[in-house]
Amino acid sequence: MNAPSATSPRRAIVLLSGGLDSATCLAIARDAGFDCYCLSLDYGQRHRVELEAAGRVAMALGAREHRVVRLDLAAFGGSALTDRNIDVPTAGADDGIPVTYVPARNTIMLSLALAWAEVLESRDIFVGVNAVDYSGYPDCRPEFVAAFERLANLATKAGVEGNRMTIHAPLIDLTKAEIIRQGSALGVDYGITVSCYQADEHGQACGVCDSCRLRRDGFHAAGVTDPTHYAA
Amino acid sequence: MNAPSATSPRRAIVLLSGGLDSATCLAIARDAGFDCYCLSLDYGQRHRVELEAAGRVAMALGAREHRVVRLDLAAFGGSALTDRNIDVPTAGADDGIPVTYVPARNTIMLSLALAWAEVLESRDIFVGVNAVDYSGYPDCRPEFVAAFERLANLATKAGVEGNRMTIHAPLIDLTKAEIIRQGSALGVDYGITVSCYQADEHGQACGVCDSCRLRRDGFHAAGVTDPTHYAA
Repeated sequence: MNAPSATSPRRAIVLLSGGLDSATCLAIARDAGFDCYCLSLDYGQRHRVELEAAGRVAMALGAREHRVVRLDLAAFGGSALTDRNIDVPTAGADDGIPVTYVPARNTIMLSLALAWAEVLESRDIFVGVNAVDYSGYPDCRPEFVAAFERLANLATKAGVEGNRMTIHAPLIDLTKAEIIRQGSALGVDYGITVSCYQADEHGQACGVCDSCRLRRDGFHAAGVTDPTHYAA
Repeated sequence: MNAPSATSPRRAIVLLSGGLDSATCLAIARDAGFDCYCLSLDYGQRHRVELEAAGRVAMALGAREHRVVRLDLAAFGGSALTDRNIDVPTAGADDGIPVTYVPARNTIMLSLALAWAEVLESRDIFVGVNAVDYSGYPDCRPEFVAAFERLANLATKAGVEGNRMTIHAPLIDLTKAEIIRQGSALGVDYGITVSCYQADEHGQACGVCDSCRLRRDGFHAAGVTDPTHYAA
C-alpha cells in the first residue's frame, strides 16, 4: 500500500458495487489516506438496488465523488445477472464457474477505472475482488490482478512516463468473516450495503442466493450481528 | 494466426472504428477464414461519422454481425477526441503523447471484445493497432497487445479451461503504405472509410489533422490512388 502523506492526499479510484466487499475496500482506501473517487458500472444488472446502495456507501464513507457509467453488457448476454432467461442459482455453489459470472466484468470495470485514473492523474485503483469465497470467478484471482496491473503500466501515459500504477486488492486473501471484521473495525455500516443477486426494489435480500448465503455465513463466522433483512 | 478450417469457420471479434486500419484488419480476418463479429464503441467521439463508416465497412466486407456499444467516455474528459474544449491539433505530430489520445481506449475496447468473445465462445480478437505511424499512443505497442493477451487468458472461462485466447494485431509492424497495399490486395474499398478526427457530417475529411496527413501520405507512399475527398 502506497500511503499518501496527510498534507497532500493522493487520489484513488475505488470500484464500488454497493455490496459488502467494495464498501470495505473503500473504507480501507480512506483509512490509508486516499481521496476516493468511486466508480460504479450500470451494466444492465438485475439487482439495480446495488447502484443505489453504492451511492449511499460512497456518501457514508466520505468519497470525494461517485460516478455511475452506463454500459449495456446485457446486449452481449451470457450471465444470470444480466440475462433474464437464465435463473439465478439458489442451490449453493457448484463446481466450476457459476452462471452468475458476468463475462469480463472485472476487466471492463478496471479498464474504466484506468481511464478515469489517467484523467485524474491518480495512480491507485482499489478493487474489492476476493479469491477465497468466490474462487469460481477467473477474474477474482491474484494472478488476474497482477496481470491487470502489468497491463495498466503498459497502457497508460502514467506508466510510460514512469509513474507506476498500482491495483490494490486488499481483500483478495481474506475470508468473508475477516472482511466483515476489518470493515466493522473501520466503521462500515453494512446495513446500507446490498449483496443479494435478486434483491427486491427496496433492497430486501432474498436470503437464498449464493451471495446471501456467503454473506449470512460470513457474519455468523465473524461473530458480528448481521444487519441484513432477509426475505427467507 | 490460427486459421480455422474451411468447413467449420471459427468466430472472431473484430474491433472496427470505421477507419482505414480496422477495415484492413477485418479484411485480413475474413481472408484467414474467420466468421467476423464486429464491435464498435460509441464513446462520445466528435467524429461520429466514423460509426456510420464502420457499419458500411462491416457490410461491405461480409461481417456476420456489427454491434455498437454506447459508453460515455466523455464523462471522464481528457482528450481532444471527446472533449470539445480541447482543440484537435493540426500542426503535425509533436514529441510525446498527442492530446488526441483517449484514456485507456484500447484497453476498454479490448475488454468489451473479450466479453463478447466469451459469450460467442470465440477465442480470437482482431484489433487494428499500429505501432509505426502512431507510436505516441502507449496502447498501440506490441508489449501492450501481449500484456492484454496474457490478461485475457487469466480473466476468462476459456482461458481457465485451457482454450487459449489470441489477440491478433496484424497491422502492428506495418507502415501506413503497407497497410494500404495489403488492404487493396484484399479488395478493401477505402472510399467508404473515414480516418479524419474532425470529418464533417457527410464524412468529408478536413485534410489537415494528423490522421488525414498520415492517410494522405500513406496512399502517396503506397502508390495507390487516394479515394478520400479532403476539404483542404
